[in-house]
Amino acid sequence: MEIAILLYEQMTALDAIGPYEVLRSMPNAKVRFVAREKGIKHTDAGYALLNAEYALDEVTKPDIVLVPGTAYTQAMMKDAVAHEWLRQVHETSKWTTSVCTGSLILGAAGLLQGLKATTHWLAMDTLRMLGAEAVQERFVKDGKVITAAGVSAGIDMALTLVALECGETVAQAIQLMIEYDPQPPFNAGSPDKAPTAIVEMLRATQKIT
Amino acid sequence: MEIAILLYEQMTALDAIGPYEVLRSMPNAKVRFVAREKGIKHTDAGYALLNAEYALDEVTKPDIVLVPGTAYTQAMMKDAVAHEWLRQVHETSKWTTSVCTGSLILGAAGLLQGLKATTHWLAMDTLRMLGAEAVQERFVKDGKVITAAGVSAGIDMALTLVALECGETVAQAIQLMIEYDPQPPFNAGSPDKAPTAIVEMLRATQKIT
Repeated sequence: MEIAILLYEQMTALDAIGPYEVLRSMPNAKVRFVAREKGIKHTDAGYALLNAEYALDEVTKPDIVLVPGTAYTQAMMKDAVAHEWLRQVHETSKWTTSVCTGSLILGAAGLLQGLKATTHWLAMDTLRMLGAEAVQERFVKDGKVITAAGVSAGIDMALTLVALECGETVAQAIQLMIEYDPQPPFNAGSPDKAPTAIVEMLRATQKIT
Repeated sequence: MEIAILLYEQMTALDAIGPYEVLRSMPNAKVRFVAREKGIKHTDAGYALLNAEYALDEVTKPDIVLVPGTAYTQAMMKDAVAHEWLRQVHETSKWTTSVCTGSLILGAAGLLQGLKATTHWLAMDTLRMLGAEAVQERFVKDGKVITAAGVSAGIDMALTLVALECGETVAQAIQLMIEYDPQPPFNAGSPDKAPTAIVEMLRATQKIT
């Protein structure tokens, strides 16, 4: 089970590492952190943190593809080389997945046309413009394409993906090993639940570009 | 607000990246990924993934120290250089924190003597042997030391830490930006909740060494 996780400059680290920590524990999992150019990538906060061990042309038939997101989507939404790779691996992938605004990259590559999909709550309009039927869910499965909402949603998606691939017992064992028994200190994790003033403040200041 | 996150060989990536994604969004946060030797560290699953931009002697007065865990604790529990650094930064830190078996490293450095603390559910006995009063909670605050349970618990701890430092509005805004509205597909995230057969299987096969 080969799992390709796309890394790139200015990405959101947890979008990749949340699902990684779940998927890497599947039986026979081989994770390939892959990028246009191998080497260390900076996160959206500017830290030289995540290392891609593989270039795109070294990972051609992954079973699972995962595209993390970023608050700065412009470069990857215009990256024809990355899009071509995504279209190619999607032809043979068992699952093509994204977290957060990773779905905008899948959409820009033409892979979400007419599909139900989701993204970060601040990026729903852009997702719609890319031809997807945008729905605000924790994650959305349409055929073999699974898109997750913002950042932390990738963990929930990944556990569900493990259950689909390996059964519920394996998924539950992984959940228990990572003690995924979340106890958020506040009930503010979605725009429907957070205080309106905070939602409006973020809408005004945190544009996804 | 300087935040030092200790990286080392065979660490669990999400232990570091979960809290990182929360703490890095605090106003004026500067995260320093720090290790005995700068450079790329392998995760517990063998991937050359996380990069330390700083050596220990370059980060001497962090406000927050965070020690992630690993399933292979032996090397770090014997690492006198790392322990000396931890004791030194603990003298001036505002918060000294750990995720998962990171608390065993704090304990081996002598920093948990007589304190209430927690760790991964499979490592409670070891934590007790290191002089801590081991309690099974999502995270435990004793004075300025905050220890979190396994892997994903670091996210809950970090949001609480942000609330302590910056107030609830900032914490809620960060929670909403990472859409931390967890919807685990199973209720299996703690040994009290998971099916007994899975708990026993993991107790038999997943020793933390």
